[in-house]
Amino acid sequence: MISSIKRFLIGRPLKSTALGEQKLSKTKALAILSSDALSSVAYGPEQILIVLVTLGTLAFWYSIPIAIGVLILLAALILSYQQIIFAYPHGGGAYVVSKENLGVNPGLIAGGSLLVDYILTVAVSVSAGTDAITSAFPSFHSHKVVIAIIFVLIITILNLRGLTESATILAYPVYLFVLALFILIGVGLFNVLTGKVSPDLSAPLGTPVAGVSLFILLRAFASGSSALTGVEAISNAIPNFKDPAPKNAAKTLMAMGTLLALLFSGIVFLAYYYGISPRAEVTVVSQIAEETFGRNGMYYFIQGTTALILILAANTGYSAFPLLAVNLAKDKFIPRMFTIRGDRLGYSNGIIILGVASILLIMFFEGQTEHLIPLYAVGVFIPFTLSQTGMMLKWIREKPTGWVPKFIINTTGALISFTVTIVFFLTKFDRVWPVLIFLPLIIFIFHRIRRHYEAVGDQLRITTCEPAVPIEGNVIIVPVAGITHVVENSINYAKSLSPDQIIAVYVSFERDDEKKFEEKWKNWQPDVRLVTLHSHYRSIIQPLTKFVDTVEHKASESNYQVTVVIPQFIPKKGWHNILHNQSSLLIRSFLLYRRNVIITTVPYHLKK
Amino acid sequence: MISSIKRFLIGRPLKSTALGEQKLSKTKALAILSSDALSSVAYGPEQILIVLVTLGTLAFWYSIPIAIGVLILLAALILSYQQIIFAYPHGGGAYVVSKENLGVNPGLIAGGSLLVDYILTVAVSVSAGTDAITSAFPSFHSHKVVIAIIFVLIITILNLRGLTESATILAYPVYLFVLALFILIGVGLFNVLTGKVSPDLSAPLGTPVAGVSLFILLRAFASGSSALTGVEAISNAIPNFKDPAPKNAAKTLMAMGTLLALLFSGIVFLAYYYGISPRAEVTVVSQIAEETFGRNGMYYFIQGTTALILILAANTGYSAFPLLAVNLAKDKFIPRMFTIRGDRLGYSNGIIILGVASILLIMFFEGQTEHLIPLYAVGVFIPFTLSQTGMMLKWIREKPTGWVPKFIINTTGALISFTVTIVFFLTKFDRVWPVLIFLPLIIFIFHRIRRHYEAVGDQLRITTCEPAVPIEGNVIIVPVAGITHVVENSINYAKSLSPDQIIAVYVSFERDDEKKFEEKWKNWQPDVRLVTLHSHYRSIIQPLTKFVDTVEHKASESNYQVTVVIPQFIPKKGWHNILHNQSSLLIRSFLLYRRNVIITTVPYHLKK
Repeated sequence: MISSIKRFLIGRPLKSTALGEQKLSKTKALAILSSDALSSVAYGPEQILIVLVTLGTLAFWYSIPIAIGVLILLAALILSYQQIIFAYPHGGGAYVVSKENLGVNPGLIAGGSLLVDYILTVAVSVSAGTDAITSAFPSFHSHKVVIAIIFVLIITILNLRGLTESATILAYPVYLFVLALFILIGVGLFNVLTGKVSPDLSAPLGTPVAGVSLFILLRAFASGSSALTGVEAISNAIPNFKDPAPKNAAKTLMAMGTLLALLFSGIVFLAYYYGISPRAEVTVVSQIAEETFGRNGMYYFIQGTTALILILAANTGYSAFPLLAVNLAKDKFIPRMFTIRGDRLGYSNGIIILGVASILLIMFFEGQTEHLIPLYAVGVFIPFTLSQTGMMLKWIREKPTGWVPKFIINTTGALISFTVTIVFFLTKFDRVWPVLIFLPLIIFIFHRIRRHYEAVGDQLRITTCEPAVPIEGNVIIVPVAGITHVVENSINYAKSLSPDQIIAVYVSFERDDEKKFEEKWKNWQPDVRLVTLHSHYRSIIQPLTKFVDTVEHKASESNYQVTVVIPQFIPKKGWHNILHNQSSLLIRSFLLYRRNVIITTVPYHLKK
Repeated sequence: MISSIKRFLIGRPLKSTALGEQKLSKTKALAILSSDALSSVAYGPEQILIVLVTLGTLAFWYSIPIAIGVLILLAALILSYQQIIFAYPHGGGAYVVSKENLGVNPGLIAGGSLLVDYILTVAVSVSAGTDAITSAFPSFHSHKVVIAIIFVLIITILNLRGLTESATILAYPVYLFVLALFILIGVGLFNVLTGKVSPDLSAPLGTPVAGVSLFILLRAFASGSSALTGVEAISNAIPNFKDPAPKNAAKTLMAMGTLLALLFSGIVFLAYYYGISPRAEVTVVSQIAEETFGRNGMYYFIQGTTALILILAANTGYSAFPLLAVNLAKDKFIPRMFTIRGDRLGYSNGIIILGVASILLIMFFEGQTEHLIPLYAVGVFIPFTLSQTGMMLKWIREKPTGWVPKFIINTTGALISFTVTIVFFLTKFDRVWPVLIFLPLIIFIFHRIRRHYEAVGDQLRITTCEPAVPIEGNVIIVPVAGITHVVENSINYAKSLSPDQIIAVYVSFERDDEKKFEEKWKNWQPDVRLVTLHSHYRSIIQPLTKFVDTVEHKASESNYQVTVVIPQFIPKKGWHNILHNQSSLLIRSFLLYRRNVIITTVPYHLKK
């Protein structure tokens, strides 16, 4: 039954050879990988104004130079990541770049913060989208957490179904959102040019503002830069592209950068020109839309697509997290299970872990994930800084032809990213301090895991270890609970292996019982030696283990191998198991994990 | 760590031979087994008045004849259960008596309703006691459910520690409650005799009352009879008494009956003489205490011991439920695990199941368990009726000397119990209908379980089945994942058993890999045949199962036995397991439960 539910939700398994068909075209990739970055337009410009409004509305003109700063950073990032794509065509983004150029630990810092960040992306963006919906339909407000969880489940299932299927469904909302914002910006600019909106609504550029300081301007810049989260997603996901993957990925990245730049500057400009102040209840985009169209169908179209893309921004996490996990798992820093492709060829374990972790986050914060945003932004800018610094070193070290402009681009990007990171730490330390605890912890765990895998590898490798001890003979112990077909079966099997000795062991709780059983046994299996053990504390495991230890000790002296043959009857239906004490299972796990004996289970399948 | 917590909570394991020391003396048994019955005094008289008050306060004099009726029922029950104790000295109460005299299904009706009833006892009485406490300390009111659950946990742990230990702790509150009520009744009667209280506070006996009907009087009688729940506990628990168990149990039952009769009639008389009306906020006992002492220390002493004994009434359930479960389990109507004695010689599984079930009930009803009381009373009077009818038949059938008075006692008891049951159904059908659904369901499950055990027994018994198929030879299949020490170990072991054939099986996901592995294998183990299977869907289980099926089919033709030897490395620490795909475990459980092959696990213990 479980398997048919699974079949219904995620579809029939796909053959490994179908992998090529699951790859993404450029238009689908743009939809699936840029929803996070593009959705930032819905809140990025607002973040700048929220900081500036502390200086008064006169300071709003600063949003223009700050936006230009953000655009420069965006350009530097896009150009830099394009170079990363060609330099590292197998994907991995910041983790691989930092690891190869700066060393393992910087790589792990980048990888670890991105890993946590993708979980935050999912939780934060789904919560934000759910907020947008429950603002429109207040009666759902008390069910916010449940709604958010349902969205996460839907996105998880879509991703388990596979890349192309989810891309097809997700492409529409993304392109609708882009279309809606272009209409908004276009009509807004038309109104400006035709003089329908008076330009003196806000202070002109260069108006002197009291109390302005570099600190506040940097803070506004850092807040605005949170619109750039999600830019690295494409460079992580190169293996998902159709061939030629790097070329297609670079083109998609450029398209995304252009779209992001256009939408971002359009919104900032209109907000400045309309003289819009950030308000708690109504977003900046919503104010612009209302000024432009009034509260008509177009307004609701813009609001609706905005809510949708906020939820879909989560999908970027789903594309990037499993691939990053594969890279980390291949280097043995996280469990190997992340490298396994599921029925539909996606890395299902990564997808499922991401879904579960973000649902836990949503439940823990009860859907109030807003104050995770600075944490999340820092988690992006740390790997940005590291990967660009890595690229700088790469150019200096390799010095390919025409490396100087590339070096300059990366240096600019690294410097701005580093500045943004520092500004976040200086201005929002109360929100971002957990990074300083989680990152070292994660990196410690990464190293522990790797050390374990290496220790295991060393011990398993044939060449490095001493040869196996030869087995000179076999002793078989059969724990018996009575004179039944199950026991008969096991004894027959033990005999068929013609070992050097078979010992049947009976654990009794009462003295009378012992004698009786010994006699019965002698009549039934006179050629098999029976040992009866008395259990004072009504436990089977304890006396049995002690006995096995004694036998094992003696056997190992002459290189004999001890095998415990456990008779087990298998009921016809699963629920029958609760009617039987699971002694066989208990004995098996206890001996297997703690003693050096081989465990054989002889099943006796019941027919009714 | 878990085992040391367990040790701390429930104490060191006891040897089976210590069983005698765990038996109860009469005074301890009275405390431990009568708390349920005695605590009923706290609400039984009130139940009568609550019904009568619907006729007006003039009708209160009816409480005297009704109380006499209840006392007659009590006397009949006590005398009847004394006979049951001597007739069935191994305990079992209503279940055993009904089963032996009326047949299996009446026995199961009695046993099933008592089983459910003990769970209700625990939930209802702990909730009632918690209510009494939170009435005194209203600030705890919002934590009612948590407090009730903590009480259930404490009682569960006490019972897991063993009978005598819990008896010692529980004896004080019970005897204090009895003492408190005796002082109250004594001082009250003294006041009455010395004329301090005027007798004309209430209507004299025989005052005509408008609207009185047999229906209402029966209803009041049935409500008052709810004070008799818990009377059967002693007859279930005879095996817990010190020798001579039946004699001691009979004496304890008589002592309990006397105490219950004295306290019940004292409270009913004082309530009538003081002219007390039932009030929602203050209990009848509390009103009597206030009239007698005023609100002084004595008043709080009475209230406190009442609250305590209400909580301890739960303990009666803990003494009786596990013993009843043992009786049902011995007859194979419920899972066998209920017959196992735990570390401290109590039937731990019964104790734990009772605790868990009543915690679930408390959580489900959020501590509002009052309307479960009628359900609970019906659940007691159904087995009362059945067991006494059973005794009637027994006397008629066996006709021992002097059977006539015994027959009369049991007939009286059966008739009154039957009347009370019918009255409950007639007057409180809205509360007691679930019995009509649960009882048939439980009895159906009882029979299903028994049928399963019998089917298993038939299949396992040596005499009734055909002899086992002889094993002519052995084929061993070793699934291998690489060329490692784990695999080497398993191959060596397989060889040491000198089977007729060893087949190593390798499942590959990629074609290239196959060839390479085959070559490596040929160099490493040239004498072991290797079969490589290609998995299209990246599953190991599927192709392996198919292969095992083929081999098994061929082998069974010539009575060869197939054994799958699974190499498994055991990491040094438990948490390491999540770092390794548990393929060995998966393969094992899949093959063991679905295929007719023997599974051998060859452990390779890692040292770091």
